[in-house]
Amino acid sequence: MLEVLLFPRKRSAPRASEQMAQHKTVLATGVFDILHPGHIRFLEESKKQGGPGARLIVVVARDKTVRDRKRYGPTLPELDRVQIVSALKPVDRALLGHEHVDFLGVLQELRPDIVCVGYDQNDIKRRVAKLVVDQNLPIRVVQIAKFGRNGLNSSSGVKKRIAKNWPRTRAASR
Amino acid sequence: MLEVLLFPRKRSAPRASEQMAQHKTVLATGVFDILHPGHIRFLEESKKQGGPGARLIVVVARDKTVRDRKRYGPTLPELDRVQIVSALKPVDRALLGHEHVDFLGVLQELRPDIVCVGYDQNDIKRRVAKLVVDQNLPIRVVQIAKFGRNGLNSSSGVKKRIAKNWPRTRAASR
Repeated sequence: MLEVLLFPRKRSAPRASEQMAQHKTVLATGVFDILHPGHIRFLEESKKQGGPGARLIVVVARDKTVRDRKRYGPTLPELDRVQIVSALKPVDRALLGHEHVDFLGVLQELRPDIVCVGYDQNDIKRRVAKLVVDQNLPIRVVQIAKFGRNGLNSSSGVKKRIAKNWPRTRAASR
Repeated sequence: MLEVLLFPRKRSAPRASEQMAQHKTVLATGVFDILHPGHIRFLEESKKQGGPGARLIVVVARDKTVRDRKRYGPTLPELDRVQIVSALKPVDRALLGHEHVDFLGVLQELRPDIVCVGYDQNDIKRRVAKLVVDQNLPIRVVQIAKFGRNGLNSSSGVKKRIAKNWPRTRAASR
């Protein structure tokens, strides 16, 4: 499995649509720390944006990137997180990002037709949209709406619940 | 997605090997609360036991079953857990178990050729093996070895780590 996990630092992937007529490459990114159905719906919806035959590539955030941004690290180490994401049905390829976030480098290397961001990824949306304009890149940026009705549709919500119920003296209420 | 999640209480699935020569049906079960790479490796190894063309069915434990057995419930509700499992590449079908565990009923309904149990499922292994002998069922029971080297290869290990680091005053050490 490891060969799919490492970022191809030196080579540039051909754009899928150059090889296979209408088949689009969709790019999504995230931490994917504690997996919940919201993640899966996000990835399914992202892939749908590319239409039939689309290929979904997911860049999983490095531990260092998460620590630098949030001042606390993810629970699962990056190799675990990328293995989990690559095991999901909608995902054609999962790989770890760069430790020093480099959006332009990623776009140039993976050459997506579409970049999908989550409802809580406004910062990424703005930065990618700016690059698309500044660099005149043929990329569509799509924000995927939030799914679900309960507080467990976020990794933070799941963690809060676990912490609240630890040690296991209380049965979970649902 | 919902139609795949409910247990077919009244009808009996045909054994895959009756329909398609050598294609085996493998059955695995578990709680799958906080997903980690050990779960994925367990499911991949389980499917391998059936050889080429095998079909993997996973019965996900109900919230009530977990509460009755462990005196504390899972963090993610059963519908979330079965959605996550059904989104994993090795899994052909995921469904919720019965609230009152009924191993014989499950075996008669799903008619697996092989039942795979995890390294920590000795009780299930014993109970299924006894049923196979008592009922003279054509089922092979296989215990899959433990994977991984770190303490995060168990849902409990992951939860312990989350609780220890909550609130988020400490950066995770890896």
